[in-house]
Formats: sequence, C-alpha cells, structure tokens
Amino acid sequence: MRDQQISELTTNRLSLYLRFLTELDGKGVESVSSKVLAEQFGLNAALIRKDLAHFGGFGVRGLGYVVKDLRQQLHSILGLDQKLQVAIMGAGNLGLALADYQGFGQEGFRIVALFDTEAKKVGMRSRKGVLIRHSRKLKTVVRREKIAIAVIAVPAQEAQQVVNTVVEVGIKAVLNFSPGTIRVPDGVKLKNVDLTVSLESLSFHLADRQGGGVKWGI
Amino acid sequence: MRDQQISELTTNRLSLYLRFLTELDGKGVESVSSKVLAEQFGLNAALIRKDLAHFGGFGVRGLGYVVKDLRQQLHSILGLDQKLQVAIMGAGNLGLALADYQGFGQEGFRIVALFDTEAKKVGMRSRKGVLIRHSRKLKTVVRREKIAIAVIAVPAQEAQQVVNTVVEVGIKAVLNFSPGTIRVPDGVKLKNVDLTVSLESLSFHLADRQGGGVKWGI
Repeated sequence: MRDQQISELTTNRLSLYLRFLTELDGKGVESVSSKVLAEQFGLNAALIRKDLAHFGGFGVRGLGYVVKDLRQQLHSILGLDQKLQVAIMGAGNLGLALADYQGFGQEGFRIVALFDTEAKKVGMRSRKGVLIRHSRKLKTVVRREKIAIAVIAVPAQEAQQVVNTVVEVGIKAVLNFSPGTIRVPDGVKLKNVDLTVSLESLSFHLADRQGGGVKWGI
Repeated sequence: MRDQQISELTTNRLSLYLRFLTELDGKGVESVSSKVLAEQFGLNAALIRKDLAHFGGFGVRGLGYVVKDLRQQLHSILGLDQKLQVAIMGAGNLGLALADYQGFGQEGFRIVALFDTEAKKVGMRSRKGVLIRHSRKLKTVVRREKIAIAVIAVPAQEAQQVVNTVVEVGIKAVLNFSPGTIRVPDGVKLKNVDLTVSLESLSFHLADRQGGGVKWGI
C-alpha cells in the first residue's frame, strides 16, 4: 500500500532533503525551518511540511526541525541504516562506470559484482576492483551475497530479458538505465533512470537565456 | 529571474509530464485531466495544475488538457525545438557510455565530441562513432560547432578545473556527473546528477518490504 501512496518523486525529495541536512549538520547548524528548506529547493513550504509530516511531526513552531534528528530519521526511512548489496548487469562502459561511481559507496551501498555474458571479460575487474563474473553465476552469487538490488546496464534490446533473469533469481529491486519500457511482476520495484531529464532541465534554461523561451507569469 | 523562480524539481516534473504526454499522444489519447496526471505521478492535482498554469491556461474545466497542444507547449518550454549541441568532457567509461546513450539523440540533443587529455585516446571513437578529441581543441570546436552544453565525466578531483575550462571558452550550461561540490560563476547554469538518489528510492521500498520501515500515516 505504501508503495503506491508514496511516489518516486516524494522519495527523491526525501533524498535531496537528506543531502542538504547532512551538509547543514556538517556545518554545525542545529535547526532548520521549512521556509529555509523551501528556498533551498524552490518548493513551497507547505509541500515540504507535508512530506515531512508523513513520518511524525518533528517540526516545532517558530523553531523548525532539529537537523540531527530529522537527518537520522530520513536516513532510516530511506533504508540506509542497512548496507545494501548491489549487482550490476552488463560490464560495458556504463556498467564499469557505475561500478566505480563514488557516490554509491558513500551512501552505504556495496557493489558486489558486475555480470556479463562475454567470456573474455569474466575474471577482469573495474578500475576500483569490482570483479566481472559470468551471468551463469548470478543465482549463486545473489544468494550467497544477499544481493538486494540489480542495476541494469545492458543494451536496450537485451534489457527486458536480463530483468526477467534477475527477477527469477529473487531480486526485488531493479534500477534500470536502459531506454525503453521494462515490465516487472507485482512485488518487484522498478526504477528507471532517464538521463535525458537532466539535459532537458539545462535546455530549458538555455531557451530562456536566448530569449526563445515562453515567459512565466510570475 | 525566471532561473531563480523555477526550480530544477519543477523542470524535472515538466520533463516527466512531456514523456507521459508523448506516450498518450502515441496512443491517440486526445485529452487528459490533472487528476489522471496526478495519479500517474503520485502528486496532488493542485500542484500539477499550478505547474501547468505557469505557462498559460490550457486546461478546460471538465475536459482537461488537450494532449497535443500541451505536449507541443512543454516541448517548446523545455527548449527542445532547437537541436542543442553537446560536448562530453572525459572519454573514460562514463563519458563513452554517455556519448552513446540513446535517449540524448531521441530528445533532440546531438553529442558533437568527447574531449580527453590522454593522447592515446585522441582520434578514437565511441562505439556509436563519437570522435574523441584533445582538450586543447575545445575552444575551436565549441565555437565552430556552437556547442551549448558540456557534460562533465571526469574524476572528482579534476572536475572543478575542467568546469572552469568549459566556462572560459563560453559554455553556459554544465551537466556534472562528478560527485562533490562544483562552483560556476553567475550566468552559467550547473546541474548535478546524483545517481545515488535513484538507489535510495529503491532502498526505501526494500526497507518497507522487510518490515524495517517506519509506517506512513496515510
């Protein structure tokens, strides 16, 4: 039920709040108001209060939220107290880049292995030392290493088949970088990363700069 | 002014609406209500109406939005009517993966070149044929090819220096994949892509599944 009620946009916002709170905590800031959060993220304060109210009412009128408490709570809500094991499917450029992506380790994720079907890649390692294994070993490794998340970094035409395979071996969470529509059965959470969204955000700002953009009413 | 008023979260939502409208248009759907959009994205209908009201009032009470019109308007608002030229800084795994990323071309972006400082890479091409050039040629190529956006795919410790270089040659929009804080002067738009946010969204759902998550009040 909660899966349906809380959208990905909401959990993405929680992630952003967490980053900012970690930054504030690092600077020794003790409390923060929803107004400050609203200004930081360009959202209205009511939406932020609603997001945060979902999991208890930490805000104190006139004072705001206690940074340390809210940070710890968000960390826990996002499931980051447990170290999650991750497998990357596809040891091409994208898979290798993701295996070494610094941010994953920092936030408590551990990249256990890369999987590929190309025999010549098997046994090699990413620059930071993540081992490339044959996809045949997936089931064994997933069970032994308790892998919870599969990242899909294979060409679009192979993506659905690879997703089917990771679901068959019991993985319940899939992060997909392949373009195109992927289907998963009920009970499996799929998140698609569309890198184009980021470029479009820049395109929007360039359109405005060049005078070609439609003017906003505010 | 508009840059400050319209947050990245808003432009990201506009991108998501555009994807969905393109899908609806492809299926021959002619109109859509804010309620349907709200359900699709797990947002409240008022927020969606507010987002869309920013650029005119296309919604008709009881009928909703005309899919084709709204799609075309969003396309234009996001600056996608012009084909924007993109350079990728860093021809490592991530740079090569991004150069061949299918979604960029589909949405009207053109990857003109990869740039690297390693002499042995210069003259080689990505799998889909994007040429790797020496960083020394950046200024010439940016001017000749009218490159508008630079994508930063270099190691974290080099990122700020590379950003300084692209800003010096006149690029006004930077998409940064390196972790860590990057600074740009006023007048340059910087967008940081944090891939960890996507993993955290999955982590959130796994925490709930395992019964370790805090329950929401709704």
